Amino acid sequence: MKINVIKSVLEAGEKVADENRRRMDAAGVVSINLMSSPGSGKTTLLEKTIPALGDELACAVMVGDLQTTRDAERIGPLGIPVTQINTGGGCHLSASQVAKGLDGLDIDKLDLMFIENVGNMVCPAAFDLGEHLRVVLLSVPEGDDKVAKYPTLFNSADVILLTKIDLLGVLDFSIDKVRDDLSRINTRAPFIELSAKAGDGMDEWLDWLRSKTV
Amino acid sequence: MKINVIKSVLEAGEKVADENRRRMDAAGVVSINLMSSPGSGKTTLLEKTIPALGDELACAVMVGDLQTTRDAERIGPLGIPVTQINTGGGCHLSASQVAKGLDGLDIDKLDLMFIENVGNMVCPAAFDLGEHLRVVLLSVPEGDDKVAKYPTLFNSADVILLTKIDLLGVLDFSIDKVRDDLSRINTRAPFIELSAKAGDGMDEWLDWLRSKTV
Repeated sequence: MKINVIKSVLEAGEKVADENRRRMDAAGVVSINLMSSPGSGKTTLLEKTIPALGDELACAVMVGDLQTTRDAERIGPLGIPVTQINTGGGCHLSASQVAKGLDGLDIDKLDLMFIENVGNMVCPAAFDLGEHLRVVLLSVPEGDDKVAKYPTLFNSADVILLTKIDLLGVLDFSIDKVRDDLSRINTRAPFIELSAKAGDGMDEWLDWLRSKTV
Repeated sequence: MKINVIKSVLEAGEKVADENRRRMDAAGVVSINLMSSPGSGKTTLLEKTIPALGDELACAVMVGDLQTTRDAERIGPLGIPVTQINTGGGCHLSASQVAKGLDGLDIDKLDLMFIENVGNMVCPAAFDLGEHLRVVLLSVPEGDDKVAKYPTLFNSADVILLTKIDLLGVLDFSIDKVRDDLSRINTRAPFIELSAKAGDGMDEWLDWLRSKTV
C-alpha cells in the first residue's frame, strides 16, 4: 500500500517530465538542466552565455531557488524571458514546477531553455524535469574530490564544466584527479575547463551549445 | 493512512536523535553537526582544529558522504577515532546512522564529537541527528547571496563560519551583504570570519568550541 503510493507519485512526476519534453520538442526548444553545488557559477555562466549568443539563439531561463528572486534579478537585465521558481524549502526543481513555468512562456519563439536547478549536488540528479540535456558544473574552490563523492550527479551529465579556472593558481586543485575520477564515472560527457569571468573556455562551451541546437 | 506512515517514520527519527543526545550527555560528550555546501572546507577545518586542540579535548569525528572514504582518510592521520558513514546516495546523515557510529566508539573517553554532514545546504538542516550544536560554514567562493537563498540552514546555526577569507582579495564578495541577510535570519549565532589555510580567525573558533565544552 505504502509502496503503491510512492510509486504513483514518482510515476506522476515522470509523466509530467515526458509531457514537458514533448511540449518543448513540438516547439523546437532544446532544454538544458544546469546542476551543481551552490555557488559554482550557474548564474554567472548564464550572464555570460546569453549575451555571447546574441541573436543567434532565442533563449529563456527558469531559475530555481528555495527563496528570493536574486538569480532572476541578475538574469532580468539580459532582456530574455526569466521565470523564478521558489521551491519554498524544496531541495530540487520538479517537473510540475517546470510545467507551470512553460505555461507562462511563448515557447514557440524559443530555441534554448536553460533550467537552473536548486544549488545541490545530490537531490536534483534524481529528478527528470523533461530536459533534453544535463550540464553539471564543478568549481575549482569546491575541491578536486567531488566527482568521486557525488557520482550520481556526474554520471548523469551530458557535459561537465570545470568553472572558476582563474582560481587554479591560488588553490590546490588537481585537474588530473578529476579526469581520473571521471574515467570511472562518465567518459561520455565532454569536459570543458572554463572561467566565465576571464572568458577562457567560453568558445568551447558555446560551440557545444550550438552543436545541440542544430 | 499515508500521513500516519510518514509521521511514524519522522517520529522514529526524532526518538533516535533524542536517544543519541541522551547517550552523549551521559558520557559527557558535546556533539557538533557541521553543515555546508560541498567544498566549503568542513574537512579542512577539522584537519586544522583537531591538532590545535591537542590534548586539551578528546575528539572524534564521524563523516558522512554519499560515496568514498576520502574524508575519513584525511582525518585518519590525526590519530583520533574516525567513522566514515556512506549514505549510498542519501542527501543527509540520519540519526540512525549516527547511532550506529556511536555503537562503535568508546564515547566515555571523549569530550567532543564532530559530525561532518553530507555536503548539501538544504536537506541536512531538516534532520536532527541528536547533536548539541550546529555549525554552518559558508565559503567566500560560494558567493555572498547564500544566506538569503538557504535561510533554513543558516537559521538553525549556533555559529556561522565564513571560510576561505584568504580569497576575499581575489573574489567579489561583500561581508556586509552577508551580515545584512543574517540580521533578518539569525542574530543569535556568532559570525566568525576565518581561513583554515592562513590561520586567521582560528583562535576565535577554538575559543567558541572551548566555551561549549566547559
